[in-house]
Amino acid sequence: MGHSKKHRGMKSSTGWDVPPPEALRAPAGFDLAAFDRHSTPGWSHGRGKAEKLVAHHAGELSDLQERLFAEGRSGGSRSVLLVLQGMDTAGKGGIVRHVVGLVDPQGVAHRSFGVPTPEEARHHYLWRVRRSLPRPGYIGVFDRSHYEDVLVVRVDELVPKKEWEKRYDEINRFEERLVESGTSIVKVALLVSPEEQKKRLLERLDRPDKYWKYNPGDVDTREKWPAYQEAYQAVLDRTNTEAAPWHAVPADRKWFARLAVSELLLDALRRLDLGWPPADFDVDAERERLRAT
Amino acid sequence: MGHSKKHRGMKSSTGWDVPPPEALRAPAGFDLAAFDRHSTPGWSHGRGKAEKLVAHHAGELSDLQERLFAEGRSGGSRSVLLVLQGMDTAGKGGIVRHVVGLVDPQGVAHRSFGVPTPEEARHHYLWRVRRSLPRPGYIGVFDRSHYEDVLVVRVDELVPKKEWEKRYDEINRFEERLVESGTSIVKVALLVSPEEQKKRLLERLDRPDKYWKYNPGDVDTREKWPAYQEAYQAVLDRTNTEAAPWHAVPADRKWFARLAVSELLLDALRRLDLGWPPADFDVDAERERLRAT
Repeated sequence: MGHSKKHRGMKSSTGWDVPPPEALRAPAGFDLAAFDRHSTPGWSHGRGKAEKLVAHHAGELSDLQERLFAEGRSGGSRSVLLVLQGMDTAGKGGIVRHVVGLVDPQGVAHRSFGVPTPEEARHHYLWRVRRSLPRPGYIGVFDRSHYEDVLVVRVDELVPKKEWEKRYDEINRFEERLVESGTSIVKVALLVSPEEQKKRLLERLDRPDKYWKYNPGDVDTREKWPAYQEAYQAVLDRTNTEAAPWHAVPADRKWFARLAVSELLLDALRRLDLGWPPADFDVDAERERLRAT
Repeated sequence: MGHSKKHRGMKSSTGWDVPPPEALRAPAGFDLAAFDRHSTPGWSHGRGKAEKLVAHHAGELSDLQERLFAEGRSGGSRSVLLVLQGMDTAGKGGIVRHVVGLVDPQGVAHRSFGVPTPEEARHHYLWRVRRSLPRPGYIGVFDRSHYEDVLVVRVDELVPKKEWEKRYDEINRFEERLVESGTSIVKVALLVSPEEQKKRLLERLDRPDKYWKYNPGDVDTREKWPAYQEAYQAVLDRTNTEAAPWHAVPADRKWFARLAVSELLLDALRRLDLGWPPADFDVDAERERLRAT
């Protein structure tokens, strides 16, 4: 399948000093404690230019999503899975709304993972994840994911250490098999600073239209910040694989996080080199049949 | 819950000669054969103004969708279900992309109904519909629906007449109960003319980026046009209830159909008079707890 000429010229995302997947990929030995959550790696412009670039990406994202969908409807097996992880207020919802919202909702399979339901809890922790994977042609979006099974589960000791210890390798194998079967996984850790989180939580308490987003439990979770950072560090150390690498996205500036994720999603779609499925029928014959009706 | 002042002034949708829900509602005794599928009932302006109005609605649609979602997360039981029915090329997909796509994908539950899977076929025809209903707080979108069980099923005699004959009343009762339990149902028949359908199908054959949307079976279905119109007439006669009325939307002009559905969705959301859920915690106490972290 040929790649459309239309997009060739757009391959380099103008404005970046370094190609975004490179600027954002968590390197081996990534040190979470030293990471500046207010920074904008690879990007030296401001908010205005970032927002323009996201808006500019809308057309190409939509086009590539439709090609992926068309391929899925024509017997293809590929899909894309965006995994969003982050502490409360890191901006996962805003990413879905403002970045994923740029493409046709018909081609998106969105799933948020909360406390397991009683049915989910009766199964292996990957059971609900497997059931939520994007079908061929879809862009799946996980708002939280199987990583909670080595994050909140580890911090709150919901299963014994010897249980969660096994999960890192298990997750790596699971993701590797997923990639082999045609799913491109884009893993994003949205990293917000504790100061910014406090500001965002306080804002929810100041605005009656935000009360519903506030949960007193968020303060309890916040009090376990160091334990969560340790758990995130372990995730980044132990599940940052070739098949499914982690991206570390500073999340203190929402506009940067949105730009970053739009670039990562776009990059994953561009790599698929998506064409349009050829006709599996005789075009001229069909034209004749149709004209006769 | 109070209705936000912000939207009071927007309640009348400027530009319409008649309020759209009134202009579009299928009246008792609706005559499908006499319906002009190229018309724009209630709207005497052109495409430009229609597209501007749809874009203008985006903000209010988003805001109301978020209120509905917030309510659902706070113990509310209400939801909205948009049912889209129409012949091939009527523009159901375009409505989802361009109208439903205006709101946060996190709050949308989209489902398209095709030929039942073997598992679905083993159950009552409403089984897969019940499983796909929007949860509280969501906007559900059905691209085709349980109405196929009295449309294609009737036309192709997939079950005996005495079976499908019972379904109209059964569907009415089903929808009535749904409405009682808090789901606002917006039923839309997208009515495209046979000439326009031919044009749109031929276009799919002229454009390699549209081949994937073409299915030789569409011509077979097209050859059964009169039987389908009869089946649609029966649907409009027998399931046009107080609880869940039908809207007849001329679909030959895509821009009009999109405007029409955006208005109907907006109207359904406005009728819910959605506020913001009050805090179920002590705001000042939480602020203190948070400040101490």
